[in-house]
Amino acid sequence: MSSGRGKAAGAPRATLLSIGSEILLGEIVDTNAAYLAAELAQLGVDLRRVEQVPDHLHAISAAFEAGLAAGDLVLATGGLGPTHDDLTRDGLARALGETLTQDADLAAELTTRFGGMGRMPVSNLRQAMLIPSAMPIPNPIGSAPGWWVDLDRHVLALMPGVPSEMRQMWTDQVVPRLRRRFHLTSLLFRTVKTFGLGESAVAERAGDLLTAPDDGLQAGIYARDDGVHLRFSSWQDRSRLDAAVDRARRLLGDDVYGTDDETLPAVALAALGRAGARSLSTVEHGTDGALLAILSGHTAQDGQARFAGGVLSMSEEDDGIPRAADAVLTVHLSSAAALGYSRVSVALSAPNGGFDDRRLRIHGSGPQRLRRAAFAALDQVRRIDGAAR
Amino acid sequence: MSSGRGKAAGAPRATLLSIGSEILLGEIVDTNAAYLAAELAQLGVDLRRVEQVPDHLHAISAAFEAGLAAGDLVLATGGLGPTHDDLTRDGLARALGETLTQDADLAAELTTRFGGMGRMPVSNLRQAMLIPSAMPIPNPIGSAPGWWVDLDRHVLALMPGVPSEMRQMWTDQVVPRLRRRFHLTSLLFRTVKTFGLGESAVAERAGDLLTAPDDGLQAGIYARDDGVHLRFSSWQDRSRLDAAVDRARRLLGDDVYGTDDETLPAVALAALGRAGARSLSTVEHGTDGALLAILSGHTAQDGQARFAGGVLSMSEEDDGIPRAADAVLTVHLSSAAALGYSRVSVALSAPNGGFDDRRLRIHGSGPQRLRRAAFAALDQVRRIDGAAR
Repeated sequence: MSSGRGKAAGAPRATLLSIGSEILLGEIVDTNAAYLAAELAQLGVDLRRVEQVPDHLHAISAAFEAGLAAGDLVLATGGLGPTHDDLTRDGLARALGETLTQDADLAAELTTRFGGMGRMPVSNLRQAMLIPSAMPIPNPIGSAPGWWVDLDRHVLALMPGVPSEMRQMWTDQVVPRLRRRFHLTSLLFRTVKTFGLGESAVAERAGDLLTAPDDGLQAGIYARDDGVHLRFSSWQDRSRLDAAVDRARRLLGDDVYGTDDETLPAVALAALGRAGARSLSTVEHGTDGALLAILSGHTAQDGQARFAGGVLSMSEEDDGIPRAADAVLTVHLSSAAALGYSRVSVALSAPNGGFDDRRLRIHGSGPQRLRRAAFAALDQVRRIDGAAR
Repeated sequence: MSSGRGKAAGAPRATLLSIGSEILLGEIVDTNAAYLAAELAQLGVDLRRVEQVPDHLHAISAAFEAGLAAGDLVLATGGLGPTHDDLTRDGLARALGETLTQDADLAAELTTRFGGMGRMPVSNLRQAMLIPSAMPIPNPIGSAPGWWVDLDRHVLALMPGVPSEMRQMWTDQVVPRLRRRFHLTSLLFRTVKTFGLGESAVAERAGDLLTAPDDGLQAGIYARDDGVHLRFSSWQDRSRLDAAVDRARRLLGDDVYGTDDETLPAVALAALGRAGARSLSTVEHGTDGALLAILSGHTAQDGQARFAGGVLSMSEEDDGIPRAADAVLTVHLSSAAALGYSRVSVALSAPNGGFDDRRLRIHGSGPQRLRRAAFAALDQVRRIDGAAR
């Protein structure tokens, strides 16, 4: 939940359409919508509606008409491929009362891409169709170009449904055009990350920093696998944001492990580095390898102990053999009990110190429970700093 | 892509609404919509539209009105909590022109749930509000009851947004009501799973089984991390489905590793069991622990070798020490190259046989690349069966 959601003054109102029958059949999860929704929030666009639309001409053109009636901007992903059920171009042409014709430049580019006319399935020429008011947006990593349509009072942007193609087109080409067209200023934000306290405890300690933030600031609280985060945002004021972060740090003390892009693996491996360890291996039980997955995903940085790999044991006895590293972190997660929480025990051996068998409790179920156990272990490691001082 | 998508005769047309501003801010991914879309497809409901709606009274009531105008059934998740921005009840009341009043039974249940009136925040009584045409749907694992509204020509069902609460209410209570109300018959389907062939190669070998399936059958092809799947579905005819599966098995031969609920870990561990191994440990490099994650998620069954855990090595040298198991599977994934594919080497030691250093190629990027390397290794293990015969 977030306690205040400011809008930039005069923010354009947007509709987002995800086009494809696969989505309505539940065959794929529409991750594009969540990605673009987060991007739009940060850009200062007021996203009013998201709709998933099947590959039917009437449904697509009706969705475009509704989007145009509802606001200033319509974004759409999907339905730009070469097959007969890729109908986004046709649906928008119909909604705008314009006619599709083949664009000679686009047709030539497509033919080159396929290595000559004879090699390209003729259906691909669908991707060279354009309406008079549309400008093509190049797609360097796929065959479907996007469309940019500026109708004076309304703007539309069509992007491919393949997430990698969509994200590259969005970042490199659509965002800069939207910034210019709507004079957008990005939302500034900063995050304070805690581990070891529940969401309500963090909210209580943060007090009016969360419930009544300063003018021009918004504050939100988010329970994530890697702890409870406080996020402050503002449309204009960097210094107030920094002041809010400083105050949150003071109020939350040792339970803050970092801000912004700092992560638990990074701060834990840095604490180990300061404690004289050059490398870390891990032994885990009951976690399905969650600690290995989290540490593998971390990119090593100077001053941090290096992650050297680890062992997952499936038996209750700890028969794992730690690898050649000078620090070893051991995590045992108990099998799930009907207590509302699970027990985790964590131990660390390290050149200058370490600790035996700390018992912790974590909440959650499913994969979240496994990841929380791993993050709880890393949180214990990063706290050796304070103990050594 | 699927080459044919049959609809049950007279299938009810549905709209699905996911209500919550967090979704439109990109703060959470709407997994409920994908889950329900897949369920509806299998139940024989024709889902026409999915919409994400912010926590605004007007937007919610407009979305209900549009859903009622568009079809027979409107499903909604979210916005049933106790806070002032939980407005789904209010939005539907407004769309139907009915008045919310507090239901004495629901209020009493809520109070009991919280252990007495004094202990319950008064805002929770919002969850006891009802309109004359709504029947409450009990929520055994949360405080928000659902609503079932049958208006003769239209049905609406409101469910909580918390995925675990939604899924339990859906399965136990909404699905049975929908089956009775709309005389639904479930879609029957069967899946044939292959590994080792690309999507176009599977399509080519399957031929008209895929492009022109028998009357009453639909066929689709899906490229997944665990291989290319062929899925056959039918509204009525079990025997034709089984015949299609048999034909696919003959056409695809050894590259079929299983059908329906059979998985690569299960068939690999069963092949090891037949080869005399009682347990398997793993050594992997370059995969971020993908093999450990996949094998940890497998539930052991009789006749299969037991997964005993494993080692993730971060260095090029294989300094992992296999654990106490009588079979050891080793997987090395090369760092990603700009070749369009990655190289994987796989070796197996096992009591009766095994193999040295098989070199494979896999396609894909990101987490998919890691998982495909792990599945490619398990595919090599399950193939020891054929080699031994």
